Amino acid sequence: MPQNKAWTLASFPATAVREDDFKLIESPAAAPREGEVLVKNLWLSLDPYMRGRISQQKSYAKGVEIGEVMTGETAGEVLQSKHAKFAPGDKVTTPSGWQLYGCLKGELLTKVDVTRVPLSYFLGCLGMPGRTAYFGLRDIGAPKAGETVVVSAASGAVGSVVGQLARAAACRAVGIAGGRAKCDYVVQELGFDACIDYKAGNLHRDLKEACPKGVDVYFDNVGGETLDTLLRLMNTFSRIVVCGRISTFDQAEPYGLKNSGSILVNRIKVQGMIVFDWLERYPEANKALLDLVIAGKLRYRESVIEGIENAPKGFIGLLKGENFGKQLVKLA
Amino acid sequence: MPQNKAWTLASFPATAVREDDFKLIESPAAAPREGEVLVKNLWLSLDPYMRGRISQQKSYAKGVEIGEVMTGETAGEVLQSKHAKFAPGDKVTTPSGWQLYGCLKGELLTKVDVTRVPLSYFLGCLGMPGRTAYFGLRDIGAPKAGETVVVSAASGAVGSVVGQLARAAACRAVGIAGGRAKCDYVVQELGFDACIDYKAGNLHRDLKEACPKGVDVYFDNVGGETLDTLLRLMNTFSRIVVCGRISTFDQAEPYGLKNSGSILVNRIKVQGMIVFDWLERYPEANKALLDLVIAGKLRYRESVIEGIENAPKGFIGLLKGENFGKQLVKLA
Repeated sequence: MPQNKAWTLASFPATAVREDDFKLIESPAAAPREGEVLVKNLWLSLDPYMRGRISQQKSYAKGVEIGEVMTGETAGEVLQSKHAKFAPGDKVTTPSGWQLYGCLKGELLTKVDVTRVPLSYFLGCLGMPGRTAYFGLRDIGAPKAGETVVVSAASGAVGSVVGQLARAAACRAVGIAGGRAKCDYVVQELGFDACIDYKAGNLHRDLKEACPKGVDVYFDNVGGETLDTLLRLMNTFSRIVVCGRISTFDQAEPYGLKNSGSILVNRIKVQGMIVFDWLERYPEANKALLDLVIAGKLRYRESVIEGIENAPKGFIGLLKGENFGKQLVKLA
Repeated sequence: MPQNKAWTLASFPATAVREDDFKLIESPAAAPREGEVLVKNLWLSLDPYMRGRISQQKSYAKGVEIGEVMTGETAGEVLQSKHAKFAPGDKVTTPSGWQLYGCLKGELLTKVDVTRVPLSYFLGCLGMPGRTAYFGLRDIGAPKAGETVVVSAASGAVGSVVGQLARAAACRAVGIAGGRAKCDYVVQELGFDACIDYKAGNLHRDLKEACPKGVDVYFDNVGGETLDTLLRLMNTFSRIVVCGRISTFDQAEPYGLKNSGSILVNRIKVQGMIVFDWLERYPEANKALLDLVIAGKLRYRESVIEGIENAPKGFIGLLKGENFGKQLVKLA
């Protein structure tokens, strides 16, 4: 069997994640048993949610334990199959985790069609992040034509899709991102109406100017102070999709939201979401997103780091906002 | 015309409301013009929402200006009518404000049937507070049989109805109130399953014990630290009805909610509400609540202060939680 390399959890980060919180283990890849498939992973997806899985706080899913392989989605190619639905050469996405080879039950794999889009897209705009944007915006944000939709982490895997879906729904799309380069990209390449650089330090004033009719939908990927600022700008009967809180992970003390009074005054609906809750409707999102990508209406950018060895470095950079677009590790 | 007495706003309270924030004005009652009705107010309702109307912060309704009569609902009897739908002797509820006589357009009055329930009930369990409980619990809280519903200010006009409606929906009803006497009343008289005295200082521990299966619906009348504590106890897919925030009005600095991360982890829906948004469905609530009162399934307690002169005192007491049941001023 080929030699596998896998990142395991060495320690729970107290605040900021460090490279030595992970340990690289080498061993021969497992041989597939009846019903299993051996996959050579070509791409590993790095996503903010992984920070929650290595926190010891209660979360929506079981956390990674010390010594276990880090959680994560991969895209790869079937090497050996003992499952009737898969054959060598098939392209698949898998929940392998941070490793070069995955040996998994066939039921855990999703076969993907790479004749029209690159394999890696199935980890991003056509994968979990894309579906998150789709269901969160559609079912919770429920924007109507002419409304204003604001999304944070706007150049990222989820945010970029949210804004483009908002535009496709005839809404004003306003992003929030860190730094001029990301903001320029969000407006010029992704077609948002505006994008605010939160690092410029005038988030409330700048957003107010960019949203002259207030905010009807805020798709929150960051939590904390940004969410608090948006609460001051929300319209009557507006909606806040609580999707992520990347700004809050490394804080020893949680941020105290001061403007929750706006929820009452403006009759805001604030709702948390996890994409798994829409599992049965994934095909609907997959089709809608694929159609948009093929039609050129859903643009997408990847931030690629090379080699499994660099996965922790890439993850730490992602948590700091150093990525520019969907963060991937190219494994082969 | 009879001599009217009316409380006007003298100054905006900086933090806690004081009696000298109001000024009593005497003048002859106005004579009704075409389409108007002169009402002798018998009861004035005092409600927490009034605190928001004399704040200079943005709220959901226009505030009271200096020199204007204080906002408020009354129940009374028609003295003179120049409107076809009303005749002397009719019992009505009105938005007269804090005064002995109201001279209003007939369209602003609601005729009520006092053959089976006392007139004052139409300011409480059969009025705005009752409808607030009904629509907030039913449409936002949407409790299912067997779920746990928690409500703060449980002995008050809204809270007492929420808990009894929850019981009628086969839910576990748990109240939060200030002091042993109110808690005993909530359990023994209103039939809640439990009631926690927040003044005892162990709100989280006591609630956890009273809600062994967690909390599915929290009907929030107080905001602040209580809401923050509930966020730690909410179940997956639970709902928070944000109806009031009486605990926050007098604070110079807003309370910072620390546990908003729970909204994401538990996919909570948090939604603000104002009963006016259900205006078209008032008859539905009125009928449902009246049926329950007549059937003896909706019990109700009033806290009565005598005389228009004492309205500010009663209002200040209400904001401090000194009332025990629906706060009314008996005007005649």
